[in-house]
Amino acid sequence: MPVFLNATDADFETAFTALLGAKREDSPDVDDVVAGIIADVRARGDAALIELTAKFDRLELTPQTLRFSQDEIADLVAQVPGPEREALELAAARIRAYHEKQLPEDAYWTDEAGAGLGWRWTPVSAAGLYVPGGLASYPSSVLMNAIPAKVAGVERLAIVVPTPDGVANPLVLLAAQIAGVDEIYRIGGAQAVAALAYGTETVQPVDKITGPGNAFVAAAKRRVFGKVGIDMIAGPSEILVIADGDANPDWVALDLLSQAEHDESAQSILITDSADFAKAVIAAVERNLETLERRAIAGASWRDFGTVIVVDDLDRAAELSNRVAPEHLELCVADPDALAEKITHAGAIFLGGWTPEAIGDYVGGPNHVLPTARSARFSSGLSVMDFLKRTTLAKMTPAALRAIGPAAETLAISESLQAHGLSVRARLDQLNED
Amino acid sequence: MPVFLNATDADFETAFTALLGAKREDSPDVDDVVAGIIADVRARGDAALIELTAKFDRLELTPQTLRFSQDEIADLVAQVPGPEREALELAAARIRAYHEKQLPEDAYWTDEAGAGLGWRWTPVSAAGLYVPGGLASYPSSVLMNAIPAKVAGVERLAIVVPTPDGVANPLVLLAAQIAGVDEIYRIGGAQAVAALAYGTETVQPVDKITGPGNAFVAAAKRRVFGKVGIDMIAGPSEILVIADGDANPDWVALDLLSQAEHDESAQSILITDSADFAKAVIAAVERNLETLERRAIAGASWRDFGTVIVVDDLDRAAELSNRVAPEHLELCVADPDALAEKITHAGAIFLGGWTPEAIGDYVGGPNHVLPTARSARFSSGLSVMDFLKRTTLAKMTPAALRAIGPAAETLAISESLQAHGLSVRARLDQLNED
Repeated sequence: MPVFLNATDADFETAFTALLGAKREDSPDVDDVVAGIIADVRARGDAALIELTAKFDRLELTPQTLRFSQDEIADLVAQVPGPEREALELAAARIRAYHEKQLPEDAYWTDEAGAGLGWRWTPVSAAGLYVPGGLASYPSSVLMNAIPAKVAGVERLAIVVPTPDGVANPLVLLAAQIAGVDEIYRIGGAQAVAALAYGTETVQPVDKITGPGNAFVAAAKRRVFGKVGIDMIAGPSEILVIADGDANPDWVALDLLSQAEHDESAQSILITDSADFAKAVIAAVERNLETLERRAIAGASWRDFGTVIVVDDLDRAAELSNRVAPEHLELCVADPDALAEKITHAGAIFLGGWTPEAIGDYVGGPNHVLPTARSARFSSGLSVMDFLKRTTLAKMTPAALRAIGPAAETLAISESLQAHGLSVRARLDQLNED
Repeated sequence: MPVFLNATDADFETAFTALLGAKREDSPDVDDVVAGIIADVRARGDAALIELTAKFDRLELTPQTLRFSQDEIADLVAQVPGPEREALELAAARIRAYHEKQLPEDAYWTDEAGAGLGWRWTPVSAAGLYVPGGLASYPSSVLMNAIPAKVAGVERLAIVVPTPDGVANPLVLLAAQIAGVDEIYRIGGAQAVAALAYGTETVQPVDKITGPGNAFVAAAKRRVFGKVGIDMIAGPSEILVIADGDANPDWVALDLLSQAEHDESAQSILITDSADFAKAVIAAVERNLETLERRAIAGASWRDFGTVIVVDDLDRAAELSNRVAPEHLELCVADPDALAEKITHAGAIFLGGWTPEAIGDYVGGPNHVLPTARSARFSSGLSVMDFLKRTTLAKMTPAALRAIGPAAETLAISESLQAHGLSVRARLDQLNED
């Protein structure tokens, strides 16, 4: 049974605070192992990659087979049935169209002092995308990571994907092909992250690494951060549904379960202003759990972390949701736009009962790589911006320097940075001579 | 003497690659110490803060004196002379004007399938800014960190600044006041970062921590990353100047020294198409080093990491600069705008000989917190965006769901995520019934 709270109960605040602070995942501390693997790949390059892949993925590679050949990709991709191919192409087109709107504009202006100011955006030159192997090898994640990179203008995009026992997922390769990925390597784990960050004889290094992975991958990304850029370190994922009494309890139950089926650490939260609706959803969840393929995982998640909160009104629901800062927020209410105005922290909002979160996972257009574990308080989902960087521009004229240079000199001296001051003073003196 | 390279020499590529790979700073490994300090602050709160401040800063505090009072701030701020106050106010106004232009726009549109799509930007609720104590306690850095936060709309902005032996820098407090900082605590080191991330009885936790610091602060920021957001982990800083033979060698020498005087690990690089100009700059650096107040630091930086490269033409200079991806790039050439078009990786560009880098440190308007140690390949300077996050929006209509829902169902099934598929199917079935 999920936790059932009533926001008007005297001990609600205590229970809700406990909910916010609950640790849902105990990541094993693999940092020492990962440090060793990274050092090994840096020292021995391909040889280390090959040895570690034999050990962890039971796959014997050579420098020539580390990377999928064009023929291998073509053969695998040809296995994908028509409907799956069409669905991936529809998804890719929609994701591309959404992300193209994110492209920021350059700016340049002249201010009242006569100074030219502005900025320019340029893409990261090379990016690497980690794709998990096995059960969590999701072609949709390939699209969600690769398309923003290509829209940003990344010239070289490499994928690493482990293929345990040599088994590759044809849909992952097709997604990579559709997204315009340039290179695909059959390596995984911390060794693949190390290869992307530092390079080997066969794998050229990249500047940015994104994509989800297990504890080893997460620890490796954290370690190479600084040498290369990384996206977020993803934690267990969550959905929060705010629903009124007129919402469809079966739909909401399935939406909660679509989060729960990901992972035993996933969390599904319902906040509603109708106690009857809350009970109907709980009953519908139980009913669906009886037949769901992943009922063991979804059932554990619902039992351990599922939460149902009854509130007096929807304003209170928005307030509580903002404290959770959920990764996914569904607003299954009569006026979702009005309620959305009250939301200050959420990774993605799904407006109205016709927008199940699963639409956003695949074909909506917005990215499904979103801030987890309450990090929507300070971070955003993956976007084109993750593959761009901004260079600021400043151009003084003699008049502009005359206007603002003395203040710079004063501040430089106050910070005991004499050469800073002199570099301005030398130019001002020249102006006074002219 | 700095390294002197000619890009046409046979062994240039080897020497340049060595330059790119050179490690300029050996950060002590303080991670275990920092882990202990963070655990202590989490366990004991104010008591730990007070004990650690007594130990490291030789300052006895109480829960009541952890935070500067309004009276204390007023007394200290009153000590700042008029010219410094005016210079700080000019700097603040210019930094504010520049950063206000960075505020991104929300977007919402309806696509051809009838789906409503878009995003909304919201500020981080609370941010904390680390300000170093002692020699590197720069009021300009307070402005550069605090103003973007306030422009973004951060409601609560706290500063932590250690005051060794109880000595506070009045200019830092004035900069905080001008920037609109809400709370100032006299704590520093890893313990201050821990207090901002986890909170104590007196210090409310924040959602994002920015600002420079020593190895302990950097290690603490890396450790609390995930619990809160952080800005970059800054490394040793660098300037690269591209100059033609008509540039002023004295000005360029002072610009190179203004970087070198920061830190013995700082790096100053000159690339020029004139060997005579190169020699004139080297001579001017040596001459200025004789009298510079911080000649010990600047001299060590120039001797150990200073680099002068002579190239055949400025295109080659741009190409080499892009491989360095410098934090600061000065273009002291006849047509700086044309050359800037060829720059793909740089934190900030200073266009033309009238724009010394020191202008950007104080009063130009763009931020002086910039990506160091070649990280301009994948990251940007501090901006308003660091204190905002984006929530994506999606709203299906029945017609939109009918158009794109089946593709989502197909992909969900292909990823063995049955509940995802059912959440879409249940709605499609309802539509078919209607």
